[in-house]
Amino acid sequence: MAEDEAPKISLEPSKTAFVFIEFQNEFVHEGGKLYEPCKASLEKYGTLTNGAKLLKKARDTNCLVVHCPILFEKGHNEIGPNPYGILKGVKDGEAFMSGTFGSKICAEMEPSDDEIIVKGKSGLCGFSSTNLDFLLRQRKIENLVLSGFLSNCCVESTMRSAYELGYQVYTVKDACGATDVDAQEACFKYNFGMFSVPTTSDVIIDSIATP
Amino acid sequence: MAEDEAPKISLEPSKTAFVFIEFQNEFVHEGGKLYEPCKASLEKYGTLTNGAKLLKKARDTNCLVVHCPILFEKGHNEIGPNPYGILKGVKDGEAFMSGTFGSKICAEMEPSDDEIIVKGKSGLCGFSSTNLDFLLRQRKIENLVLSGFLSNCCVESTMRSAYELGYQVYTVKDACGATDVDAQEACFKYNFGMFSVPTTSDVIIDSIATP
Amino acid sequence: MAEDEAPKISLEPSKTAFVFIEFQNEFVHEGGKLYEPCKASLEKYGTLTNGAKLLKKARDTNCLVVHCPILFEKGHNEIGPNPYGILKGVKDGEAFMSGTFGSKICAEMEPSDDEIIVKGKSGLCGFSSTNLDFLLRQRKIENLVLSGFLSNCCVESTMRSAYELGYQVYTVKDACGATDVDAQEACFKYNFGMFSVPTTSDVIIDSIATP
Amino acid sequence: MAEDEAPKISLEPSKTAFVFIEFQNEFVHEGGKLYEPCKASLEKYGTLTNGAKLLKKARDTNCLVVHCPILFEKGHNEIGPNPYGILKGVKDGEAFMSGTFGSKICAEMEPSDDEIIVKGKSGLCGFSSTNLDFLLRQRKIENLVLSGFLSNCCVESTMRSAYELGYQVYTVKDACGATDVDAQEACFKYNFGMFSVPTTSDVIIDSIATP
Repeated sequence: MAEDEAPKISLEPSKTAFVFIEFQNEFVHEGGKLYEPCKASLEKYGTLTNGAKLLKKARDTNCLVVHCPILFEKGHNEIGPNPYGILKGVKDGEAFMSGTFGSKICAEMEPSDDEIIVKGKSGLCGFSSTNLDFLLRQRKIENLVLSGFLSNCCVESTMRSAYELGYQVYTVKDACGATDVDAQEACFKYNFGMFSVPTTSDVIIDSIATP
Repeated sequence: MAEDEAPKISLEPSKTAFVFIEFQNEFVHEGGKLYEPCKASLEKYGTLTNGAKLLKKARDTNCLVVHCPILFEKGHNEIGPNPYGILKGVKDGEAFMSGTFGSKICAEMEPSDDEIIVKGKSGLCGFSSTNLDFLLRQRKIENLVLSGFLSNCCVESTMRSAYELGYQVYTVKDACGATDVDAQEACFKYNFGMFSVPTTSDVIIDSIATP
Repeated sequence: MAEDEAPKISLEPSKTAFVFIEFQNEFVHEGGKLYEPCKASLEKYGTLTNGAKLLKKARDTNCLVVHCPILFEKGHNEIGPNPYGILKGVKDGEAFMSGTFGSKICAEMEPSDDEIIVKGKSGLCGFSSTNLDFLLRQRKIENLVLSGFLSNCCVESTMRSAYELGYQVYTVKDACGATDVDAQEACFKYNFGMFSVPTTSDVIIDSIATP
Repeated sequence: MAEDEAPKISLEPSKTAFVFIEFQNEFVHEGGKLYEPCKASLEKYGTLTNGAKLLKKARDTNCLVVHCPILFEKGHNEIGPNPYGILKGVKDGEAFMSGTFGSKICAEMEPSDDEIIVKGKSGLCGFSSTNLDFLLRQRKIENLVLSGFLSNCCVESTMRSAYELGYQVYTVKDACGATDVDAQEACFKYNFGMFSVPTTSDVIIDSIATP
């Protein structure tokens, strides 16, 4: 089914959580260790602007807001002594280290005092090393609206797990970012439709009635 | 690091499992419901030939052999009444139904009597609805060699989970298949290196000394 | 809160699953390998009679019926070569071996053709090596009614996991059995109230309106 | 097998983690909200003294030290609006609230700067809402030495999950505590041997050669 034939989305706030994945300075601002490679995708999609619009809408409609940062203590001891793959890059680059500028959630997406911040994310999937599923199940959340970084890494892993866990998953393409625009567009094209309803920030914003 | 600079792989059989994902007729033989779209990728990579070579090597060297099919009972009641995404396609198409030709593991990869067949796979990730992790942990397996179908769906989900679970994951690109060659090559290019050591059947076969 | 002050339970069938844990001959009938030690508890509580009453009620009211047996292939290769604890007993005793009398679900609780039988249970918790959570989430089940064997082993592990997974868990004490009446009563007294609403078959049967 | 016939335990430090579960003031010191009910068990077993001896030994032998506290933000929003069971007690009692005396790990067990503190524990099992398994797998840990609080609640849930995850689990009975001595002794007697090797602090201390 083409997206323009998609049935209208309508989300009930009490059953809906917005999960904001790694909107951290490391990716989105000058001085962040992965800002340079992310810049093209941030600009092409307007990721930050759209992320902030989603956050405002979620707050205005009393949807559950969940911030999901990735964090490591100094020394990155959460990762083993001989890593490979993406965690090797994270450890070698000392990225997302607690207390640094890079690890902070960016000003545009700053959590308010009563919002939930997921704990324990030492890996890629938002569920596998965290209390995210626990938090969502405690509130009987059925719909997940996913956005953030990186489209084909943590967002995609979180989407894949969320789908298997039985959530109704919405992925907001224009509120995601990646270190490579082609990588982002490949996962949108080939993978996101298998494990979610891929959509845009405008569609999501229209899908919830403001009270 | 380019793959041709990759350090030599050396796998200890007692700590190594070959997980063969969905080598079922549905994907690989005439009459299978997804054979037509998979044909191009099967031919380009020689998936079945390479899968069979891996299976022989695993047997010859006493590595753990694990077959991981996806199966549904008649009615596909394992999937809910209003599915979306890839599970909707599976249910609507009555694919992988227990007892049918399509759901059988193909002759080239037929399990021997003492080999383990993973149970419970109603979803995409090889771990999330199955006893796969249980079986591997019982044997203190550290290395996983993954191959099968579909590269960007079940193989990729299994790879992503295996990586987070701390396994040393090897993905055998020329023993995988997909419904779209471009989708397959996009996930190889952008995603497989983050969550595994992408490699080929020849490299894996050379990595284990025949006793 | 004492149980006699407990608020009335009222279960909505479309959100309620009855999970029948290991009602297999091994525990409940002459010839079963664990029948002798279970006999006292079966007789004291009327486990089988009450289990069958629950099953009938679940069917009459269109609640989801889920059978959750434990099964091993000949050789018990699902369990590692050097087990300890309860799995050592299972392997040494060749219990719950596929195809044997002992592994069969007992006649009183025989699944009908369209009922779901959980797959992959090689361990104790009904969730950890199976597709149980997948099946329940696909149907948006919120209430779990647990009964079966052994009260302080698989029933208790399943209850503990179900509670953390956010289900509203009901444990039916008089439809459970154990190899030791004192063990059963200790877990009822000290543990079941922390992770479930402990109750009885009569209360559960009254909690659902027959359509 | 009686414990006095148990084979000698010998633990290799590089594969061994000591997981200290909830050695927090709430349970162990005057002013802690659960200190009064825990007092009898603390005194009978010498829990704190034995816990501290284990911690010293783990440090002296370079075993992995993992502290596993339970923590909630002000408001206990990690727990849903209508909890039942043990989480209802935690929320109603505002126990383990971040920043309070009660939530702090007690002075006797204070983590050193380079020791790992598990994150995300909003539930009972040490694995189910945390990064504990991730941390252990990253270091290829095979042996878990468990101690802490409460014997029949979080320690038991963690033990049950650890066993299914394939770890070799040791439970140190005289370094555990509970709100009820009878509850503690019932779980030791009936349940701990199914899912672990129940032992004592002296035996564990003797099982690791000081370098």
